[in-house]
Amino acid sequence: MPEMNRQILLANRPAGAASTSNFQSVEVPLAPLTYGQVRVRNHFLSLDPYMRGMMNDSKSYTAPQKLGQVMCGATAGVVVESRNEDWRVGDNVTAMFGWQNYGTCDGGGLQRVDATHVPLSAFLGVLGMTGVTAWYGLNRVCAPTPGETVAVSAASGAVGGIVGQLAKRRECRVVGIAGGAEKCRYVVEELGFDACVDYKKGSLQTDLAAAAPGGIDGYFDNVGGVVLDAVMACMNPHGRIAMCGAIAGYEGQKLVMANPALILVSRLRVEGFIVGEHPNDWPVALDELGGLVAGGAIRFRESIAEGLASAPEAFLGLLAGRNFGKQLVRLI
Amino acid sequence: MPEMNRQILLANRPAGAASTSNFQSVEVPLAPLTYGQVRVRNHFLSLDPYMRGMMNDSKSYTAPQKLGQVMCGATAGVVVESRNEDWRVGDNVTAMFGWQNYGTCDGGGLQRVDATHVPLSAFLGVLGMTGVTAWYGLNRVCAPTPGETVAVSAASGAVGGIVGQLAKRRECRVVGIAGGAEKCRYVVEELGFDACVDYKKGSLQTDLAAAAPGGIDGYFDNVGGVVLDAVMACMNPHGRIAMCGAIAGYEGQKLVMANPALILVSRLRVEGFIVGEHPNDWPVALDELGGLVAGGAIRFRESIAEGLASAPEAFLGLLAGRNFGKQLVRLI
Repeated sequence: MPEMNRQILLANRPAGAASTSNFQSVEVPLAPLTYGQVRVRNHFLSLDPYMRGMMNDSKSYTAPQKLGQVMCGATAGVVVESRNEDWRVGDNVTAMFGWQNYGTCDGGGLQRVDATHVPLSAFLGVLGMTGVTAWYGLNRVCAPTPGETVAVSAASGAVGGIVGQLAKRRECRVVGIAGGAEKCRYVVEELGFDACVDYKKGSLQTDLAAAAPGGIDGYFDNVGGVVLDAVMACMNPHGRIAMCGAIAGYEGQKLVMANPALILVSRLRVEGFIVGEHPNDWPVALDELGGLVAGGAIRFRESIAEGLASAPEAFLGLLAGRNFGKQLVRLI
Repeated sequence: MPEMNRQILLANRPAGAASTSNFQSVEVPLAPLTYGQVRVRNHFLSLDPYMRGMMNDSKSYTAPQKLGQVMCGATAGVVVESRNEDWRVGDNVTAMFGWQNYGTCDGGGLQRVDATHVPLSAFLGVLGMTGVTAWYGLNRVCAPTPGETVAVSAASGAVGGIVGQLAKRRECRVVGIAGGAEKCRYVVEELGFDACVDYKKGSLQTDLAAAAPGGIDGYFDNVGGVVLDAVMACMNPHGRIAMCGAIAGYEGQKLVMANPALILVSRLRVEGFIVGEHPNDWPVALDELGGLVAGGAIRFRESIAEGLASAPEAFLGLLAGRNFGKQLVRLI
C-alpha cells in the first residue's frame, strides 16, 4: 500500500462570501519518486488573505486558482525522501506546495532554511513573505522619517504587527487600527504601538484624529473601504499610503473610495504593491528581520489550526478577522 | 483726478455651482506710489481651474480666497511707474496681481520676462505655471518610457495639450480625452496626439480601450470622476497616475473612486501634486519648454476674453469646458 497524501482542492468558486463548501478534501496515493525528485512532508501551511482573491475568476494580481486543483499556498516542511543530490532527508525547506500534507518536486521552488535558532513556522511569517511585505511597504512606500506618524490597519495581524514594530524602530509615532478591545490591547501592550483604534467601536474618525493628533504621514493599508476613507481624511500633506490589501472587499463587497480628491488636496501618494515583484529587496529585508527576530526585538504571534482538515475554517476565520497574528495550519 | 483701477472681488461663496453673482466689480483710485513701490499695468490675466477651489471655504491645497478681496490670479504686464531702482518703466513682468487692471507692489513677487521672441501671454501659459505643471506631472509622476502609452484628460486644455506634446517627444503613444468632436479633432490634427476619445459620446470605456489597445501606462488626470474611473480600468500593471485636477468635482459634486482596489490589483501609483511645491524643477522645465516654444516645436492655443468685465463669464466657461486651450483675459 503506498502512503496517502491528503489534499484540499478548490471545488467551486464562491458566489459572494466564501464558505467551506467551496473546498473539497481528497486523499491520493503518493507515487514513487523518479530520478531528480524530492518529497517534503509539510509541517506548516500559511493562510493568507490573497488566497481569497484567487478563488474568484476575476482580474486580480494573481492568476485565478484552478478548479479541482490543490489550493495554492506557502508551506514549511522537512525533506523525507530525495532522489536529487542537492537535497537530503532532514533538510528544512519552504515551498509553495499549497494545501496538502506532502509536496513533491524536482527541487525547483524549494528554499533551504536554517531552523536552528528560530522555529520553522517563522519562515512562513516574519521571516517569509509576511515579514518582507511589511518591510517593503513601510520602507519603500510609506518611507517615514523619524517623528512622523505611521498608521496601519489589521494591526494585530501578521503583517500589520511587523509594520508597526519596524516603524517604532524608525522613531515614528505608530497608530494601529484593529477590531475589538483585546486586539487593541495586544497591539499597544505587547507590540508597543503608541495607540490602537478599535474600528468596531463606531467612532473611527474621531478616535483616529485623537490617536494621531499631528495627522498621519504614512499609512499601511490592509483593509480598504471605510477604514481607508477615515485614514485619508487624517493624512498630512505629502502623505504616503501603501496599499497592501483590501480585505474589506474580498467577499465581493463593492468598495469605493469616498473622497479621492484628497489625493490632490493633500498631495498624497497612493501605491499598490506585491512584494513578490521586488526580489532585490528580499535579502535586505530578511537580513534586517532575521537580526531582529534572533535578538528578540520583534514580537509576533501565531494562530495555529491543527490538521489540514481545519484549513478551510481557519481561512474563513482569517477573512473574518478571528485570527490573532499569523494564521498557520499545523499539518503534522 | 487720480487714475482708477478696476477690480473684481469675490463677493460671496457659491452654494453649489459658481455664478457671476459671486463676483463684484469695483473701481478704486490708484494711490500715488511711495518710495520703493512699482506699478504694473496688467495686460493679461490667467484663468485657471484652481480658482474654483479657492472660492469655497473648505480645505483645499490653497487657502480660501477672502471675501471682499480681489480674486487672486497670475498676470502678465508692463511696469508703468516705478520708485524702485530694480524696476524700470517698460519692463515686462509676471506677477500674482489677480483680477485687476493694475498691480502695485514693492517689487517682491515680480518676475521679469523676456518677451522679445515669444508673446507676453505665453508666460501665463506654456512658459508659466501651466507649462511647468504639464512638465512636472508628466516627467516626475507619469515618468513614461519610450513605447509606453500616456493618456491625458482635458486634452485640448492648456495643461493637457502640453502634456500630450511632451509625451509624444518622449516617444510614447498619446491618447487624449476631450469633450466634443471639434476638440478631439484639434488634439489629433493640430497637437499630434495619436488618438483622442470624446467622453461626451457616452462610450468612454470602449472607446478608451480601442484607443489604447496596449493599455495605459501613465495618466495625467485633470478631471477626476467617471473619466478617472474609466482610465483606471485600462491601466497596465505598475501604471502611474498624476492627479493634477478634479474639475469634475469643482462645483461640489461628490466624486467617489469607483474601484480603488485596482490600485492594488494593478499595482498603480496615484499621486497628487501642486507644481508650486517643486521650485527646483521650474528652471529645468522652463528651459526645455522655452527651447521648444522658441523652435515652434510646441503648439498651443489661447482663448482670450476681452476686458476685465468679461472675466467672470470666461471663468465659468472654463469650468464648463467651453474654452479651447489656455483661457486668458486681455486687460488692455
